[in-house]
Amino acid sequence: MSNQEAMTKYIGAFVDELAKSGVQKVVVSPGSRSTPIAMLLADHPEIEVIIHIDERSAAYFALGLAKAMNNTVAILCTSGTAAANYFPAVVESYYARVPLLVITADRPHELRDIGAAQTINQVDLYGKHVKWFQDMPLPESSIDMLMFVRTVCSRAVQTTMQRPYGPVHLNFPLREPLVPIMDDPNKFEGTDSSNVKIMTSYPTLKDKSFNELVDKLPKKGLIVCGPMDVYNRAFNEAIVQFAENVNYPIIADPLSQLRSGTHNKELILDSYNAFLKNETARKKLKPEMIIRFGSMPVSKSLMFYLKEHADVPQYIVDGGQGWRDPVSSAYEMIYCDEQIFCEKLASLTNNKTRFNSTWTEQWLRLNQLVKESIVQIDDEGISEGRLIYHLQHLLPKKASVMIGNSMPIRDVDDFFHSNSSEIKLFGNRGVNGIDGLISTALGISVIEDHTYLVVGDLSFYHDMNGLLAAKMHDLNLTILIINNNGGGIFSMLQQANYPTYFELLFGTPTDLRFEHAAHLYGGKYYKVETFQQYLSVMEHTRMEKGLKIIEVLTNRQENAEIRQKLWNNVSREIENILG
Amino acid sequence: MSNQEAMTKYIGAFVDELAKSGVQKVVVSPGSRSTPIAMLLADHPEIEVIIHIDERSAAYFALGLAKAMNNTVAILCTSGTAAANYFPAVVESYYARVPLLVITADRPHELRDIGAAQTINQVDLYGKHVKWFQDMPLPESSIDMLMFVRTVCSRAVQTTMQRPYGPVHLNFPLREPLVPIMDDPNKFEGTDSSNVKIMTSYPTLKDKSFNELVDKLPKKGLIVCGPMDVYNRAFNEAIVQFAENVNYPIIADPLSQLRSGTHNKELILDSYNAFLKNETARKKLKPEMIIRFGSMPVSKSLMFYLKEHADVPQYIVDGGQGWRDPVSSAYEMIYCDEQIFCEKLASLTNNKTRFNSTWTEQWLRLNQLVKESIVQIDDEGISEGRLIYHLQHLLPKKASVMIGNSMPIRDVDDFFHSNSSEIKLFGNRGVNGIDGLISTALGISVIEDHTYLVVGDLSFYHDMNGLLAAKMHDLNLTILIINNNGGGIFSMLQQANYPTYFELLFGTPTDLRFEHAAHLYGGKYYKVETFQQYLSVMEHTRMEKGLKIIEVLTNRQENAEIRQKLWNNVSREIENILG
Repeated sequence: MSNQEAMTKYIGAFVDELAKSGVQKVVVSPGSRSTPIAMLLADHPEIEVIIHIDERSAAYFALGLAKAMNNTVAILCTSGTAAANYFPAVVESYYARVPLLVITADRPHELRDIGAAQTINQVDLYGKHVKWFQDMPLPESSIDMLMFVRTVCSRAVQTTMQRPYGPVHLNFPLREPLVPIMDDPNKFEGTDSSNVKIMTSYPTLKDKSFNELVDKLPKKGLIVCGPMDVYNRAFNEAIVQFAENVNYPIIADPLSQLRSGTHNKELILDSYNAFLKNETARKKLKPEMIIRFGSMPVSKSLMFYLKEHADVPQYIVDGGQGWRDPVSSAYEMIYCDEQIFCEKLASLTNNKTRFNSTWTEQWLRLNQLVKESIVQIDDEGISEGRLIYHLQHLLPKKASVMIGNSMPIRDVDDFFHSNSSEIKLFGNRGVNGIDGLISTALGISVIEDHTYLVVGDLSFYHDMNGLLAAKMHDLNLTILIINNNGGGIFSMLQQANYPTYFELLFGTPTDLRFEHAAHLYGGKYYKVETFQQYLSVMEHTRMEKGLKIIEVLTNRQENAEIRQKLWNNVSREIENILG
Repeated sequence: MSNQEAMTKYIGAFVDELAKSGVQKVVVSPGSRSTPIAMLLADHPEIEVIIHIDERSAAYFALGLAKAMNNTVAILCTSGTAAANYFPAVVESYYARVPLLVITADRPHELRDIGAAQTINQVDLYGKHVKWFQDMPLPESSIDMLMFVRTVCSRAVQTTMQRPYGPVHLNFPLREPLVPIMDDPNKFEGTDSSNVKIMTSYPTLKDKSFNELVDKLPKKGLIVCGPMDVYNRAFNEAIVQFAENVNYPIIADPLSQLRSGTHNKELILDSYNAFLKNETARKKLKPEMIIRFGSMPVSKSLMFYLKEHADVPQYIVDGGQGWRDPVSSAYEMIYCDEQIFCEKLASLTNNKTRFNSTWTEQWLRLNQLVKESIVQIDDEGISEGRLIYHLQHLLPKKASVMIGNSMPIRDVDDFFHSNSSEIKLFGNRGVNGIDGLISTALGISVIEDHTYLVVGDLSFYHDMNGLLAAKMHDLNLTILIINNNGGGIFSMLQQANYPTYFELLFGTPTDLRFEHAAHLYGGKYYKVETFQQYLSVMEHTRMEKGLKIIEVLTNRQENAEIRQKLWNNVSREIENILG
C-alpha cells in the first residue's frame, strides 16, 4: 500500500471517529501541511467545516461555539506559527473549562529540528495548558493502527468532556504527497465497535456527607454563585430551591446565569458590589457559613468581604475538582457536581422550617436600596452605567450576550439587574483577556439566536480580525462598542494619579473610527452620541439580520467621576441605615 | 522599607541595567500588573517606550526593530493571555535568531493556580522556544537582591546576543500596590560595576583547519548562500572576494543580501530556481564541493538539486552552530563565524591561480538565459512576476523591503534580480508564517528609511491590527498588497486538482476591500488595476511620508498559468542548450 493510501485510511479513520465521538463542527484554517485532514473533514457527511483564516480568531471562535453547544469543537491548522496563534484561546479554554480539541499538522519526525521550513517544536506546544497531548505516529493502515487512531480520537474527545472540561492537543506528522485519495470509497470505513467509550462520571458525595452538611446549616447562611462553567437550567432551579428551603440569600455574579431565567429571583442579590464597598456593611453582614459555587465572582468588594470573613466556614463546591480560592478563605472544598449537590440539599431541606428571616431581609433591603439609588443614573447622559442599566429592556427576551472583560463585565455586575427575561450571559472569565471577544461572540452566534457583544474599544480593536467570520459565514451579531477611546479601567486605578505617564502607558487613545471596520467587513454601522439615539438604535436593530456595529462614544474621565459620585451616594445612604 | 519602596528599587535597578546593557527600545502593551515596570521604563532617560496595544503585533514589531537595529529589543506585557499572544513572534525570533527580551508581569507566587483573575502558568510559558527563562523572585531591596536583578538583566540581554541570537523570557511576579514611588530620586541608583559582562565570543577554526580546507578546494565548487541571520556588509564583501579568488559561482537567495549592495555581482546567480527545475540541468551541473551559508534558501528546485547531489561534499558554515540541513545532504558542519570564515579563505586563496572557468561559465550562461526569457513577462499584463521584476527600478536606491511569505518570497526569488542598488531585503524565514508581517515591516521602518512591504492579501489581513503602530507613531511604510483574493500558493500545489474542496479550504476568497483598512488607520490608499498605474503609483509614492497602501488586483488562476508557461519556455531553451 502506498503512503498516500495509508494516509487516506488513517486520517479517514480519525475523521470518521471524530464524527462518531460527537464532534459536529471543526473550525479549519487554511494551510498546506494540514491538507489531508482538511479535505477528509470537508468530505465527511456528518462534519461541518467552518473556515477561519486568522488562527487566533479561529480558536476563539471555536471556544464560543463550544460554550454555546456545550460540546467539543475541534480546530485544525497547519504547522509553525499557525499553531502558536492558537495559544491565547487554548489558555482561555483551559482555565474556563471549555472542551476544545486542537489538531495541528506537523512535519514528519525526520524533518524536525533540522531547519526545514515552517517547522517548530510542536511537542507539548501548549505546555501545561492542555489536559492531554499526543504526538501521533505517522500514518499507517494496519488494522492495529486504524484501531489506535480511532481510540486516540475517541479518548481525546471524551477527555475534553471529562470534568473539568478543557483542551486536548493532537499533533499529526504528515509526509508528502499531502492529498488523500478522495475517490477511495472506503476512506471512512471502520467498525462501530472499534473505539472505546468512557462512561462519564459525575463526582458526588456519600449520603452521610450530605446529611452531615445539612445538620450543620446555620441560620445565617450565604450562597455565592460565581461564573458557572456551563449554562445549566436544572442547576439554576436546584440552587434556588435549596436557597428558598433554608432562606439564604444568593450573591449572583452576572455569569452565574441566575440574574435571568425562569427560576424564582426573590433571593437573588445583584447589587452587592455596591453595598459591600462599605466597610460597616461588610462587618455587619458577617455570615455563619458561606457556600460558594463557580469561579470567583468579578466583584472586588465581594473579594474583600470573603477575605475579611476567612474565619467563617466557607464551602467551595466544584464539580471540576479545582482550587478556585484566590482569597485563601476556603474552609472545605466539596468535589461534587453542582446540580447534584443542590438537588440533594434541596430535597434534604424540603420539610425543614425556614430559618428566621432577619438575616436575609437585611441583605435584600440593602440590595433594594442600591437599586433605588442607581435610578439616579438616569440623569447621567450617556454614561456607561446607564447604557448597561437599560440593556435588559432593550434586548430580545431570549438574547445571548457576550460581555467583554475589563470594564463591561464590571458595569454589567453593577448595572445589569435580575429580570424575568431568559437572557444568557457569556464571558471569557478563564483568564479575563481583552482578546478574542468578537470571535467568541461570533462562535456563540452560530448556535444562539439574537447574540450581542458588549465590548470596549480596545477589546474591539484587539479582535477586529474576528469579524471576517461574520462576513464569510453570514452570521448575525450585534456589537455594542462602548468607546471611551482607550483603557477606561485604568482611570479607576492608582496610575490615574500620574498624569505624566497616564495617557502614554494606560490611556492609550487610538482615535480609531470603527465605521471603517464595519465597512471592511460588510457590517451595518450606527454611531450613538445621545442616550435617545441609543434607545432608538437598539430598538431599530433588534430584529435586523447580519453584523451590526453600534458605537457609543463615552468619556473615560466623566465615567470615572459618575461612578465615584454614585458610589458615594450609595455609601451615605447605607451608613444612614446601618449606622 | 515598604513593599512599594522595595519594588521601586528592585524594578528601578532592573530598568537601569536594561539601559546599561544597551537596550534602547521597549515595546510596551498596556496592562495593570505590568504597571511598575512600564512606568519606570517610561521614566528612564535612556529608554524609549513604544506603545502597541495588540501584543501579537507588538512582539512582531519588536522583532522587526531588533532585525533592523541588530540589537536586543525588549517587549513588556501584563499577565494572562497577553503573554500568550507573544507566542508566534517568540517562536519566529527563536528560529530566525533575533535578539528579543520578553518581559512578562505575573501574579506573585501565592496567587498562582488558585483561580485568581488573569493568572496562567507563565513558568516556561514559551517552552523550548526561548534560549533562557527565569521566574524572578519577588521584589526585595537588599544590596544582594539589587545586584542579583541587575546581573540577571545583563545576562538576559547578553544571552539574546550570544550566537545563535534569540529570545529570552523573564517573568516578574509583582504584588500590589502596583505603582512605584516615582519621586524617589534614587530609583535607578546602582554602581556601574554591579553587572557582569560577557566577553562575546566568535566561533572560529584553527589555522590548520582553514589550510586543510583550502587544499581540498576543487575546480568545480559551488557556493550557496541562504537567508543570513543579520545584514552584514563585511560578510558580503568577504564571500564575494573568496568566490572571485577561486572562481566559484554563488547561488544567492534573496535574503542572502547578495543580490543588492556595493560588492561585485559578477558571480551572483539569481535565476537558478528556474533552470534547476530542469532535471538535465541539475544532473549536468554536478559540483565537486558545495559550501553553504545561512539557512535553507527558498528555492524548491535548489532543494532537489542538493538532495540529488547528497554524495558531493557539502560544508555548512554556521556561526550560530545549528543544524540547518533539511535535505540531509550535509557532509560537514563548520561552526565558524561566516565573516571570519570568508575573510580567512579569501586571504588564503588570494594568490591562487583562479580555477578553470568552464564550470562557472556554464552556470552564468544558464542564469543569463533565464533572465532573457523572463523578459517575456513584459507581455503579461499585471502578473505578479512582472510586478516584482520591475520593483528594483521603482524603489529608492537605499530602500528596505520586507518580503511576505507564501508567494511574495517565491516571486522575489524568481524575479528580483541582482542590481546595483543598496536595497536590503528582509523576511520572516525563521518559520515562514503569514502572520506578523506588517508589524515586522513597521518595526523595521523605525530604523530604516524608505521601508516597503510586499505582501499577499491573506497575510495583509492576518496582521491588519499591526497598522495601528503606523497611526500612533507616525511611521513611514509603503505596503504593496498583491491581492489575488485568497491563498495563491495553493493554486500551485496538488490540491488545485480537487475543485470540490479547493475554494472552500484553500482558495478562501475573503473579498475584503482594503481601502477601508487604509481609512481606519489613516493611510493613503491606491488601487492599481493596470501595469501603467502600478508604475505611476510607485513613482508617485516614492518620496511621500506616512502609511501608503497600494493594492494591486491580480488573478490566482491566471498567475498560475503565466508561471507555468514561463517555466515551460525556459525549460525548452535549456534543453536546447544542454541537449
